Amino acid sequence: MAELTGNILVAQSGGPTSVINASVAGVVTEAGKHGCIEEIYGGLNGILGILNEDLIDLNDEKAKAIEGLRYTPAAALGTCRYKIDFKKKPEKAALDMDRLFQVFQAHNIRYFFYAGGNDSQDTSHKIHEEAVKRGYEMRVIGVPKTIDNDLPHTDHCPGYGSVIKYNSATVMEVGIDVGSMATDDGSCCVIEVMGRSAGWIAAGTVLAKRGDPAAPPHIILLPEIQYRVDDVLAKVKQTVENYKYCIMVVGEGIRNEKGEEIGADATRLDAFGHPVLSGAAERIAEFIQGKLNTKTRTVKLGYAQRAAAHFASLTDSKNAFAVGEAAVKAAVSGLSGHMVKIVRHPQTDGSVQWGVDLQPLQDIANVEHFIPRDWISEDGFLPNEKFVEYARPLIEGEVRLLMEGGLPKFTVLEKNRVDKVLPPRA
Amino acid sequence: MAELTGNILVAQSGGPTSVINASVAGVVTEAGKHGCIEEIYGGLNGILGILNEDLIDLNDEKAKAIEGLRYTPAAALGTCRYKIDFKKKPEKAALDMDRLFQVFQAHNIRYFFYAGGNDSQDTSHKIHEEAVKRGYEMRVIGVPKTIDNDLPHTDHCPGYGSVIKYNSATVMEVGIDVGSMATDDGSCCVIEVMGRSAGWIAAGTVLAKRGDPAAPPHIILLPEIQYRVDDVLAKVKQTVENYKYCIMVVGEGIRNEKGEEIGADATRLDAFGHPVLSGAAERIAEFIQGKLNTKTRTVKLGYAQRAAAHFASLTDSKNAFAVGEAAVKAAVSGLSGHMVKIVRHPQTDGSVQWGVDLQPLQDIANVEHFIPRDWISEDGFLPNEKFVEYARPLIEGEVRLLMEGGLPKFTVLEKNRVDKVLPPRA
Repeated sequence: MAELTGNILVAQSGGPTSVINASVAGVVTEAGKHGCIEEIYGGLNGILGILNEDLIDLNDEKAKAIEGLRYTPAAALGTCRYKIDFKKKPEKAALDMDRLFQVFQAHNIRYFFYAGGNDSQDTSHKIHEEAVKRGYEMRVIGVPKTIDNDLPHTDHCPGYGSVIKYNSATVMEVGIDVGSMATDDGSCCVIEVMGRSAGWIAAGTVLAKRGDPAAPPHIILLPEIQYRVDDVLAKVKQTVENYKYCIMVVGEGIRNEKGEEIGADATRLDAFGHPVLSGAAERIAEFIQGKLNTKTRTVKLGYAQRAAAHFASLTDSKNAFAVGEAAVKAAVSGLSGHMVKIVRHPQTDGSVQWGVDLQPLQDIANVEHFIPRDWISEDGFLPNEKFVEYARPLIEGEVRLLMEGGLPKFTVLEKNRVDKVLPPRA
Repeated sequence: MAELTGNILVAQSGGPTSVINASVAGVVTEAGKHGCIEEIYGGLNGILGILNEDLIDLNDEKAKAIEGLRYTPAAALGTCRYKIDFKKKPEKAALDMDRLFQVFQAHNIRYFFYAGGNDSQDTSHKIHEEAVKRGYEMRVIGVPKTIDNDLPHTDHCPGYGSVIKYNSATVMEVGIDVGSMATDDGSCCVIEVMGRSAGWIAAGTVLAKRGDPAAPPHIILLPEIQYRVDDVLAKVKQTVENYKYCIMVVGEGIRNEKGEEIGADATRLDAFGHPVLSGAAERIAEFIQGKLNTKTRTVKLGYAQRAAAHFASLTDSKNAFAVGEAAVKAAVSGLSGHMVKIVRHPQTDGSVQWGVDLQPLQDIANVEHFIPRDWISEDGFLPNEKFVEYARPLIEGEVRLLMEGGLPKFTVLEKNRVDKVLPPRA
């Protein structure tokens, strides 16, 4: 494959994670090693910023800022949920694609790296195909990222290990707190975590148990399973009888036996006539208090869980960096239209070595990966030892943060803009 | 003062904190240094356990377990919310008091240390007075503890520094997450923290700003102030216009201009006919979405914030240990009927040295300490630089945890029971 000389563009998309910036650091660090790569640009706010020709010069950032990205949460380049939708809006999509390639051409972008989840891999795939169709020589590699862990083919997604590490520590801490307050009256705490259709995040908190059936969490409700509320309540009752308290983790998208989201009660309207969406934990807590008369409190971690760099997984951070590096290596070697995936190499001593490989983007785009049913207990209330074996290595090690005055000192990029050369987007 | 030989009893009360066990470690460590102290007992589940003669032998615990208490959250001895209420239930209270002194006498308890907040200091005070009245020689010292930071006379309460350190880091992390997703449409996140009548916990998150007006949190609502919802919405609107996003922290007990709790809407009933108490953040979010049409998400940290030992303040942990030590020293020196308080000694280099002193329990019991009004901006939407000067030193330093497989390894006491010698409680 002939050497391709030109500039690179890296951008971030979708919901941020604690370690998505580590992938950008991986891209920038690796890119600096290759003579064929001239400028290293970042696109602000994903595809949306690129359409607006909002590019920054990442070579202009201080080396310690790039290093600092390894433990800075959120999307340092900004992110978006913009979708180039050929199905629903074909004309707008075609205009967008034209504009993207105008920007690529105007800035001699020959390498494009997009860090994101399902939608973003789909976007990368479309851009790759479009480049081929147009005969515009550019190598496109997808960089996996999503706390949801629902991308296929990769062992796991960067961002996932950190979210389950933080959530498990939280469940452990809340568990001993509630346990230490428990009296014969019993008490319950329902912790809501992210995950609308896949239950990877909720399931990951099983690690807090360390294999002890008596340890919290006692019940984990997953969006993959449909639950009869009465069965859930019976399980809570039994748990409180056994241990005087019950810690339950619920994925935000959990459903009842009719397949309806438990947290989205369309029959109750707020003051503005909108359905009350206070969430799965609040609804389950209402049932427990109302039907079992057991004191119940809720925790809703929300955005805190995906941004919790202060307790990120070192394994996750390293793998996030590695997929960024690998994306550049693959592109420089001549490949395009692939996503980097993470490969697990179990060692004889029980530890795990991590490698990277590539998977065609067409195998990734818009495929959602769920927890295998046989990784979940028969009653659906806890992931089993197969899941634990899978998830345990992902939370190993702690990222060391720079601290200042008792709080993390995160990196803020200078974001020196690349001069615009195109007329504004129509 | 003549030397008093006998056993000590230490117990914990009320809501746990990240560092209440550090105070127990301080008591046990100091007690070991005094020949007049024979056995070191712990009361399980506070006064409730003592009434049941549920005592454990803390001298029987491994030294490393006592050391581990310094970074183990929740109440290692168990806690309770039991109140000896002479006003509402005088007969029951008198019976309880008799029983307590039977237990003290049966186990030759000559030193009693009770770690807790307002109610617990009141209990300690009553026990001290009762001992004097009965001519039972026992020294009673209160050990301050409460994330609410609402005890008077002490500079701050152990537990508070850790909760605001964790909450501030969370606000910082959620802030850059939401900021990195912000587009011209604007977005908002409302983070609910504890604090039903005093706003110390909510106010503490101002530290996440590091003095930058543009940095989150942009708005902090405190239970001390009454807010017109329209004023709050106007402030949100202005913030989103300025920064494209708005991070708001609300204490759970915030009130409207009529003095009603915003999170407790008695007009809406759940499926069981109980008022819906989904909380302040959910209610404010409803208003923002309904009236401003700005995308709003919520975070409710709940118990997670007071149990977050994984990001506890080293200053807080040290002071918690110090008040435990000081309680024993004071009692051995002959004092009774006091609470240990923390004293601040500002240094010329801007740092702070911490000392301890004593305050009569009668000055503490049932007095609630609020944020001074002149520590809050005139519009009531942010604590000012006086508050920051007060709070900043409390979050300095990080507690180092033992880790195992990527999660904290907390101490679990063996809890070897002291033989009961009394008939069961009537």
